[in-house]
Amino acid sequence: MPLDRFPAIQECVNAFRRLPGIGPKGAQRIVFHLLTQDPESASLIAASCESLHERVNLCGRCHILVEGEAGGENCTVCGGREPSVICVVQEPADVFAIERASGFRGKFHVLMGVISPLDGVNPEDLTIGDLMDRIKEEGVKEVILALNPTMAGEGTSLYLAKVLKPLGVRVTQLAQGLPMGSHLEYADELTLTRSLEGRKEL
Amino acid sequence: MPLDRFPAIQECVNAFRRLPGIGPKGAQRIVFHLLTQDPESASLIAASCESLHERVNLCGRCHILVEGEAGGENCTVCGGREPSVICVVQEPADVFAIERASGFRGKFHVLMGVISPLDGVNPEDLTIGDLMDRIKEEGVKEVILALNPTMAGEGTSLYLAKVLKPLGVRVTQLAQGLPMGSHLEYADELTLTRSLEGRKEL
Repeated sequence: MPLDRFPAIQECVNAFRRLPGIGPKGAQRIVFHLLTQDPESASLIAASCESLHERVNLCGRCHILVEGEAGGENCTVCGGREPSVICVVQEPADVFAIERASGFRGKFHVLMGVISPLDGVNPEDLTIGDLMDRIKEEGVKEVILALNPTMAGEGTSLYLAKVLKPLGVRVTQLAQGLPMGSHLEYADELTLTRSLEGRKEL
Repeated sequence: MPLDRFPAIQECVNAFRRLPGIGPKGAQRIVFHLLTQDPESASLIAASCESLHERVNLCGRCHILVEGEAGGENCTVCGGREPSVICVVQEPADVFAIERASGFRGKFHVLMGVISPLDGVNPEDLTIGDLMDRIKEEGVKEVILALNPTMAGEGTSLYLAKVLKPLGVRVTQLAQGLPMGSHLEYADELTLTRSLEGRKEL
């Protein structure tokens, strides 16, 4: 009695396996959980996934997520915030991370990825053109680059610094170094090197 | 811009958090993944969860999962298998685990839980009555208890042995001991004790 004789279960398992962080065993566990322990969750998930893309849009200007009237001048974050600073992030989810963390009061701009020629992502596939338009139109004085500290993120930051500085803005990058609560002993070499390079006067 | 100003995203995050193995961060990651990377998965999950309970039923006799015509005499596993041995498991998912593993050719019976008075689960809440009826009607000679080796599972096995033996059947239990590929050094004391007690002549 292999699982492929159960097409409804198999389809559901395959759908959950497409999600990040869920492997074959996890997906099966979820589907059996829905079947035998918590039938109500199946309809909750069905309903919320069904309407997700109808209810959530990307702002046409800053590319962050918006609910209700979509984007443009209406986007609440584009609208009433300090216009002289723009924080550039990789994905819409990163906006929520920065909002949770800090008292950042400026605007956001989502690149929708990073430059990665091996994956076929070139500068023109990102929202760099929109960002340059915004810098010219919105009186931006500083661009804070908050891309992930990976190879592709670093490369994209260097590229952005090169094309944005000629527009007359200050281009800064989030500090790299030891994460709070960590131990020197377990820090990797690159992180330690960066935290030495970026040391601060006390 | 906290997440609770995004009701559609929040509803979807809450729905995924109800699933086993998915915490708050994982649920958020999944929803942002659906929104920005893989919109198609959202509709696949919605559709398969929506129809899951319509397409999958529990067999009224052995309580394992069936698709198509539901249960009773129609259940393919109840139907054409060796009738003298019944393997008793805790959850419908356990049937698939045993089928994947072995050449077991007998029938199954799903208890739909284990006795656990603290959680309000008493013997009459399980399918023990059905199991006793089946033993009387189907010419069963051996009952293999394949419950999880936990406190509640062990207690339920002892209870079942007590009530089933008077019906004139052999009651056996899955062997407990060292899992294959493990190291003695890392085995817990109870597992080692059980594997010593259950040692086999070579």
